[in-house]
Amino acid sequence: MRRGEFSIEEQAEIDEFLSGMSFGFLATTGEDGFPHITPLNYAYANGHVYFHGSYRGEKMKEIAAGKNVSFAVAKEFAIIPSYYSDPAMACPATAFFKSVHIRGEAELVKSLQEKAEALTALMRKLQPEGGYALISPDDPAYLPELKAVSVVRITIRELTAKFKFGQNWEEQKRVDVMEKLCERNRPDDEETAKMMRKYCPAHSDKNN
Amino acid sequence: MRRGEFSIEEQAEIDEFLSGMSFGFLATTGEDGFPHITPLNYAYANGHVYFHGSYRGEKMKEIAAGKNVSFAVAKEFAIIPSYYSDPAMACPATAFFKSVHIRGEAELVKSLQEKAEALTALMRKLQPEGGYALISPDDPAYLPELKAVSVVRITIRELTAKFKFGQNWEEQKRVDVMEKLCERNRPDDEETAKMMRKYCPAHSDKNN
Repeated sequence: MRRGEFSIEEQAEIDEFLSGMSFGFLATTGEDGFPHITPLNYAYANGHVYFHGSYRGEKMKEIAAGKNVSFAVAKEFAIIPSYYSDPAMACPATAFFKSVHIRGEAELVKSLQEKAEALTALMRKLQPEGGYALISPDDPAYLPELKAVSVVRITIRELTAKFKFGQNWEEQKRVDVMEKLCERNRPDDEETAKMMRKYCPAHSDKNN
Repeated sequence: MRRGEFSIEEQAEIDEFLSGMSFGFLATTGEDGFPHITPLNYAYANGHVYFHGSYRGEKMKEIAAGKNVSFAVAKEFAIIPSYYSDPAMACPATAFFKSVHIRGEAELVKSLQEKAEALTALMRKLQPEGGYALISPDDPAYLPELKAVSVVRITIRELTAKFKFGQNWEEQKRVDVMEKLCERNRPDDEETAKMMRKYCPAHSDKNN
């Protein structure tokens, strides 16, 4: 399986995915040289990834020590059983997914205004219905909170996206599996079939 | 927020979570010193984490180069809006989750029998309904596949679990939020309220 077959280049697709997902995984390098991994809620704003936390936390120490980080966001879609394409062997079983992998530099945000904007982006995603006062350093109620919270900005140096929906399959296999998913009708199946149609090479050709 | 407040010690709870989730994130250290992160399906069997891939893949090279890895699995439950506890400030907004963080040593599995067992554990999780022949190196149809696939075993050196469900909240706030979640009734809300009840300190005391 070659990575290139599933890579997605369209920035709009990637932006939509990153904006719609609520949490990702940050990888930093610990003082002991071990890679360290932290799940966290994030916002994607102005082309940067932002997250917040406590100044005392382990990941903040690691970011201060070495700012090179990786950040990944992934969503699993339908799991495709082996018997959809092979009556005996387990090997064809697979899972479809979208994932985005970012390499970049993490830095603590010092500007209170940028902190407010990052937290606003996070709130817009996690609480789109509103129900809170505008986050601003000009609001005396928010000012001490904005000073106390640590906000980290990841400046993206490299971004790759893999959306795996059977793009490398033969047409007949793709059509068969789409039909079987629609019959099975588990929560992610319809959406998965939609993605298989959207990202199939033939469909892409027609639209290019 | 102190980590200890949400830490889960009961191995049975952790095992249930790891066995129920289908994918996690592996952090390795790249040749350039960057931490690298890969989402992957995994199996948890005999106290080890297993995953499979291609011998040609980047993560396999990194595992060969330095076997210290981290592996994390996380599931997000309900997002708790700020207005459940504060009419004006955004600060109390939070997300509840379960996460497990593993540090260990990754090694390529050489034994074909162990490979078969790891892949069987993976299949039992992803395809519990069966529909495939027993995976075994004694089956001539599977033998070349078992030789060709790379299977990695993570030997767990350290495992920590954080299940965050408002354990540090006052009783009244917890009761209020549980009621509001039941009223809101989004897909994860009922399950989240159940977890809040299960992991609240009072409930734990009663059961100890």
